[in-house]
Amino acid sequence: MRLDLPSGNNGVATITLDSPKTRNALSLDILNQLKTAIAEVEEHVKTSVVIIQANSKDTGVFCSGHNLKEVIQTRKDRDAQQLLFRTCSELMSSITHSPKAVICKVDGLATAAGCQLVASCDLAVASDRSTFGTPGVNIGLFCSTPAVPIVRAVGQKRALQMLLTGDLVDAETAERWGLISFSVGKGEIDAAVDTLAQKVALKSSTAIAMGKAGFYDQLSDDLDQAYLKASDVMVENMMEYDAGEGISAFLEKRAPVWSTAER
Amino acid sequence: MRLDLPSGNNGVATITLDSPKTRNALSLDILNQLKTAIAEVEEHVKTSVVIIQANSKDTGVFCSGHNLKEVIQTRKDRDAQQLLFRTCSELMSSITHSPKAVICKVDGLATAAGCQLVASCDLAVASDRSTFGTPGVNIGLFCSTPAVPIVRAVGQKRALQMLLTGDLVDAETAERWGLISFSVGKGEIDAAVDTLAQKVALKSSTAIAMGKAGFYDQLSDDLDQAYLKASDVMVENMMEYDAGEGISAFLEKRAPVWSTAER
Amino acid sequence: MRLDLPSGNNGVATITLDSPKTRNALSLDILNQLKTAIAEVEEHVKTSVVIIQANSKDTGVFCSGHNLKEVIQTRKDRDAQQLLFRTCSELMSSITHSPKAVICKVDGLATAAGCQLVASCDLAVASDRSTFGTPGVNIGLFCSTPAVPIVRAVGQKRALQMLLTGDLVDAETAERWGLISFSVGKGEIDAAVDTLAQKVALKSSTAIAMGKAGFYDQLSDDLDQAYLKASDVMVENMMEYDAGEGISAFLEKRAPVWSTAER
Repeated sequence: MRLDLPSGNNGVATITLDSPKTRNALSLDILNQLKTAIAEVEEHVKTSVVIIQANSKDTGVFCSGHNLKEVIQTRKDRDAQQLLFRTCSELMSSITHSPKAVICKVDGLATAAGCQLVASCDLAVASDRSTFGTPGVNIGLFCSTPAVPIVRAVGQKRALQMLLTGDLVDAETAERWGLISFSVGKGEIDAAVDTLAQKVALKSSTAIAMGKAGFYDQLSDDLDQAYLKASDVMVENMMEYDAGEGISAFLEKRAPVWSTAER
Repeated sequence: MRLDLPSGNNGVATITLDSPKTRNALSLDILNQLKTAIAEVEEHVKTSVVIIQANSKDTGVFCSGHNLKEVIQTRKDRDAQQLLFRTCSELMSSITHSPKAVICKVDGLATAAGCQLVASCDLAVASDRSTFGTPGVNIGLFCSTPAVPIVRAVGQKRALQMLLTGDLVDAETAERWGLISFSVGKGEIDAAVDTLAQKVALKSSTAIAMGKAGFYDQLSDDLDQAYLKASDVMVENMMEYDAGEGISAFLEKRAPVWSTAER
Repeated sequence: MRLDLPSGNNGVATITLDSPKTRNALSLDILNQLKTAIAEVEEHVKTSVVIIQANSKDTGVFCSGHNLKEVIQTRKDRDAQQLLFRTCSELMSSITHSPKAVICKVDGLATAAGCQLVASCDLAVASDRSTFGTPGVNIGLFCSTPAVPIVRAVGQKRALQMLLTGDLVDAETAERWGLISFSVGKGEIDAAVDTLAQKVALKSSTAIAMGKAGFYDQLSDDLDQAYLKASDVMVENMMEYDAGEGISAFLEKRAPVWSTAER
């Protein structure tokens, strides 16, 4: 795993899974490295967007989920298993709770916790050779934690189809179901993700941080409770410098200069 | 803003945004007028369906959201901002809680709180020149309140794509994502909305009022709690005159005469 | 109604609605028979998959919902109505809570509680002559209980379109909206459902039982609460024989032999 903080002023950090020999499996060590990387990015003021990608060029594997050789060694050790799955859940949850916009760049196979990683990011772009699945059911281990963000992305019938059959779905289907934001041709993924990341990085990082937190916070509330929370977020957002600057710039037909400029 | 109660017996009221010069912006004054109109319709027994539409013929703008010139004047006044966003949330929520079926008729651009208005209606029909977006992020003010009904319509990945990029989506995409019920050709929207409104207006307004309230009430409950509530709604609905009349008419192969007939 | 427990070792039970003369209506008697059948299957260790199907060959009706002739007889009897709708809700809920994977096989019209039955199954396959609807609104009785699983499958705008108009949607639309898993040509439904049932029946029934229960249990939770539950399910699943066998078999590139083998 490798973390690259923004080079220059583009505001885009990159986290790269780089264990092609183990199909970029999420061992406990890698999960902890990822958690640390997400936390480090969170503290980095100059970063407003994070891309999570993988070295999949030669293998065609984005991420195959947990490292089964590691898992089987401690299979009957409840504490070890609990540590593993809690750490994984904490990582995935930390992506959701991160104040940065997180984009998943998928070019290959994403299965089990690898598919969970895709579903957990705010945005996801995949090349058309990518496939997605939750095949845990094939090895007697239902993908229960991957199901958490996947069903929230694709809905019940599609999630259960993936979970009960273990079948892979292609990128076009994943886009249609809402598991990813969109798919592009294999040769276009670098440009597509760069364009998307740059577009989001040009926004006010204050607005994104406040908005993203508010967005996830109200998802499971009933409508009126959600509105109470969201109204408060709007008011606090309005008190920020960037809202004043952004609205003024819009009315004056000029580009805004955010509070994080000159970074 | 203009409210037209049903002319004759068709049971369809119409609320028209009519400030094309301000792109039908939702100023505090307009928000309050809309709230009053929704409340007035609620009391009007002869109305069973409300169409919310806009004068967008010449501008191509259905509704551009809040009035930014107004917003910026009181930007640092927390009380004023709270009043504005709470009033907006109350309006949107009152559409959901209205006992009438509310249809949004969109022919043009619907952004920010304008897009929220579309998402908040029970049904929405749009012409194919319509576009939808939450561009608040471009001006440092994340569309947190619009996100509330939008994510409930289109799901997480699509909502975040709209919210983080500020990009517009076209009517075909909005239909595919579930933001609107369906899109039609530009020349067909009047007929399509009239047909839909008339179809719904022919139903029992008692059944719609009870059913709509029950529908929204159980959305964020777990399945068993939702069933407890919904079963009770069915039983109470069954006690109503219209259920007896409707079932009898069906079994006797005749048209039902609802309790609100002769209105 | 007819229950066929697995013949031989294929692990697939079948429940068949067989009242074509009453359009396979869900009378109180049939609802109770179905509840009993689901409970019986639950106790049957050799079963891991249940197909719910209907005799619709000549009528083209999968299930038309409640038996209106029965309903009207006790319309003003609140206790009788409560018994009917609670029993129906209990049946639908028992499908969700069943430890077996439940597949709905639809070849014809599925309306009201019949459509609810489709939405309540974990997976659903329909022939392309099938249609789906919630026409209760046409008879003054809003489909409030069918709405519970339908909105959880298709989302708000689509559910309200069905509920407020009473219109039927075809199988292709039902697939696109997520009401069913997929649709197939009329001549292919037997083979498609058999293939799907056999595929799921080959999985570990322990993993399916634990995973399915965990899946539904976390649906209405917020993300962090959902992850706490799902992590615990993963750990408990890992303690089971089938997880050890499945992972070992995968690493050894051989077929797993589940704990329920030799059944």
